[in-house]
Amino acid sequence: MRCAIVYKSSEHLEKVSGFLRKLGVSFEIFSKPTSELESFDFIVSIGGDGTILSILQELKKCPPIFGINIGKVGILTHARPEDFEIKLEKAIESFEVEKFTRLSCLCESGEFLALNEVALLGKERTKLTEISINVDSQEIDIIRCDGVVVSTQIGSTAYAFSLGGPVVDPYLDSILVVPIAPFRFGWRPYVLKGDRIIELKAKEGLAVIDGKKVVETDRVVVRKSNYPAVFFKREDRLKNIFYTIRRIE
Amino acid sequence: MRCAIVYKSSEHLEKVSGFLRKLGVSFEIFSKPTSELESFDFIVSIGGDGTILSILQELKKCPPIFGINIGKVGILTHARPEDFEIKLEKAIESFEVEKFTRLSCLCESGEFLALNEVALLGKERTKLTEISINVDSQEIDIIRCDGVVVSTQIGSTAYAFSLGGPVVDPYLDSILVVPIAPFRFGWRPYVLKGDRIIELKAKEGLAVIDGKKVVETDRVVVRKSNYPAVFFKREDRLKNIFYTIRRIE
Amino acid sequence: MRCAIVYKSSEHLEKVSGFLRKLGVSFEIFSKPTSELESFDFIVSIGGDGTILSILQELKKCPPIFGINIGKVGILTHARPEDFEIKLEKAIESFEVEKFTRLSCLCESGEFLALNEVALLGKERTKLTEISINVDSQEIDIIRCDGVVVSTQIGSTAYAFSLGGPVVDPYLDSILVVPIAPFRFGWRPYVLKGDRIIELKAKEGLAVIDGKKVVETDRVVVRKSNYPAVFFKREDRLKNIFYTIRRIE
Amino acid sequence: MRCAIVYKSSEHLEKVSGFLRKLGVSFEIFSKPTSELESFDFIVSIGGDGTILSILQELKKCPPIFGINIGKVGILTHARPEDFEIKLEKAIESFEVEKFTRLSCLCESGEFLALNEVALLGKERTKLTEISINVDSQEIDIIRCDGVVVSTQIGSTAYAFSLGGPVVDPYLDSILVVPIAPFRFGWRPYVLKGDRIIELKAKEGLAVIDGKKVVETDRVVVRKSNYPAVFFKREDRLKNIFYTIRRIE
Repeated sequence: MRCAIVYKSSEHLEKVSGFLRKLGVSFEIFSKPTSELESFDFIVSIGGDGTILSILQELKKCPPIFGINIGKVGILTHARPEDFEIKLEKAIESFEVEKFTRLSCLCESGEFLALNEVALLGKERTKLTEISINVDSQEIDIIRCDGVVVSTQIGSTAYAFSLGGPVVDPYLDSILVVPIAPFRFGWRPYVLKGDRIIELKAKEGLAVIDGKKVVETDRVVVRKSNYPAVFFKREDRLKNIFYTIRRIE
Repeated sequence: MRCAIVYKSSEHLEKVSGFLRKLGVSFEIFSKPTSELESFDFIVSIGGDGTILSILQELKKCPPIFGINIGKVGILTHARPEDFEIKLEKAIESFEVEKFTRLSCLCESGEFLALNEVALLGKERTKLTEISINVDSQEIDIIRCDGVVVSTQIGSTAYAFSLGGPVVDPYLDSILVVPIAPFRFGWRPYVLKGDRIIELKAKEGLAVIDGKKVVETDRVVVRKSNYPAVFFKREDRLKNIFYTIRRIE
Repeated sequence: MRCAIVYKSSEHLEKVSGFLRKLGVSFEIFSKPTSELESFDFIVSIGGDGTILSILQELKKCPPIFGINIGKVGILTHARPEDFEIKLEKAIESFEVEKFTRLSCLCESGEFLALNEVALLGKERTKLTEISINVDSQEIDIIRCDGVVVSTQIGSTAYAFSLGGPVVDPYLDSILVVPIAPFRFGWRPYVLKGDRIIELKAKEGLAVIDGKKVVETDRVVVRKSNYPAVFFKREDRLKNIFYTIRRIE
Repeated sequence: MRCAIVYKSSEHLEKVSGFLRKLGVSFEIFSKPTSELESFDFIVSIGGDGTILSILQELKKCPPIFGINIGKVGILTHARPEDFEIKLEKAIESFEVEKFTRLSCLCESGEFLALNEVALLGKERTKLTEISINVDSQEIDIIRCDGVVVSTQIGSTAYAFSLGGPVVDPYLDSILVVPIAPFRFGWRPYVLKGDRIIELKAKEGLAVIDGKKVVETDRVVVRKSNYPAVFFKREDRLKNIFYTIRRIE
């Protein structure tokens, strides 16, 4: 069994690699995620949610990830440096994993995968833009706004959360659509079935994938990808999400 | 094939029954819904969403319903008195139907079925009450509020809508939990998988089912019922919902 | 100088009265607020925000109030039992006071004073009611909802807060209007000048004053009263409000 | 009496100038606002709210403005091309005017005036930024977000409106503070007295004034300016605002 360790800061690297050695697990260390990670049996991430998002952006086929949180929120992680040992050992032993939807975002310049969300923004930051929202080829709304976000259930605690969206069960196969700064009297988050195809169109747009990749495009087509994210199972995931989000301040 | 007509106002009764006669469909007329309706092959409701909710409260096993809307919103209906003929004829011919989750609400005095929502309110109307929310036996939140609503996806356009909840895809098997007037800095609607079991507890509570039935109880256990509501298919249901809710003012 | 002590629980009564004796302040003790309190030079309340609201409901002319908080939120109070001595001594010495708007609520059965808010609710708890909102005799909105709240700036941290209203500067002379569970796509809190006259009308209504007094009425006329609430000055009131509300959970 | 006509599209220019000629009012025509406008007795703007904002950005001392709306919302305007004649004639005759707060925004590169709002954004568009909010030199909040908006009461129907802020009485002297996409469980709009001084700080920021001027700065100090915007009086301004905002969609 081969493990890849990806770290953001080297602070806890020694401790983690020492523990893997003790377990007899061979590993390689990466200071930056690359597509090579696909060939490993599992990945240990030392960092925050951002580190895990960076890893996922390099991967189509995703080995199970175990996250050791040194960041603030850590909703995607499994343990902290203080207490990772037992949890990591159990994870490797049982090798129970969970798969979470990633979105495929098709735009002019190619296809991108998102764990949290795809945002289509107006290109000029200070100008209202008009965005049309199509679901399965039916136009369901046109909104003058700063942008529109299409989010997974996991992403309901990321940017969609900042926009006033609901918190979605991590195990509910669904797609969230939430506008950014909609200039109108009323608006609502839309919660759609996970197999819907969402198309967003703007006059001059910018697609932002997981808050990390930015591409110029006037149109994105977003749907569930065939390449889910894979994590080691976390028994208390549901409860953890509800508790974590209330502590975000 | 036997049809039951249930009407709220007799205004369009003649027109509807005349049309059914022309189609050669035998029917009986009800000015009030009763459990007898279970034995019919289908039901035509002349009224609004409220009329359909009243019908459903009498039924466990539910024959397909066709709604002719004489009310305001009519999100559960299929046509208006002006244009029901073609739609009703097609519906009877094809007999394509759709099933939508109803919630079973178990409380001290028995079991009730809800198409839209179950609300647990504090018994005294002008007093804050503390309600604990359990999901699959895990406490995920305790809120000081006027009450908490557990809603189906269909109910996301009913009371949950008034409380600031998201609009949910009618075909997404899910359960919404939304607090009523939560006395705290932050709160979010929770969107859960459809097979979760939700338990709400208050010190002294009042359960309200679909805004119609009121029972004293300190605890409700809400889950998906085995008796869904059945409607004739409406091809444009998704789009219709998004358009209808924006017109609600 | 004569002081009235009003207490909710007798737990800290000894400590407080002992301290006043030490300061040479004569006092009388009340386990329940009465209109007699008007004749005192100042009032010490041992309780929570609710105790202060109860006191104010008995008073037109209001002696300055000093609140010792044994409740949860205590946004109207000045100190806690652990640390009231220095603050109370300073308050009595300097006798600097602050006045805060109370609302006069005129309805069929008389006039009532509110420190926080006046709510007009539909009489039947489980039924949508239509409420029209008039400002200075101009109808600015009609809403189908559970009710409408007219709140002072102080009340922006009370029931209006639960309804999603903004937090208002305690020194901004203004009136907040916020609907309760409005059944429509969009709604906004309205923040009005303090000298506006607000009239609410329902078909069959219930007025609730500060969450305590309930009267049947179909119409309330709400405006700034000539009898403000008077509190001992709290230098850090603005900052305290912003910090307190974030801790409400 | 000298009038300046500023127009966005020349479509209605002939009609407006013809009417002024008929009234015996001398005028000059501007296709672009300049600071020269300060020396005129009044200004007629043919355009939308954006045209009026552009005019105001050139002016410290502001002659009264009369707006003929050819745009969408037109909340700052007085009439439409179809019906401006009587209203304009009356306005010139009575010369009753209204003054509305403008904000002075002091930042590293100078002072700017805003009729609607000053926004401090994180410089990098796709990254959360931490913004501290000080009111009269007291820190009242620190928020991780996309930015924070400080708005006038008039601006409560502009960008602050898109962010979920309340609608504020145009005659209530006040300052609104609303975060943009705050990454936390709860947040509220803050409504402050009009004479408060608001300081916003970010690590690397961008100040945007009325959605038009953009300057790099890590800190803005915002307070009521001595140079208000001046408009011809509109008797129905309050009611108009409440009706206009509900039509925004």
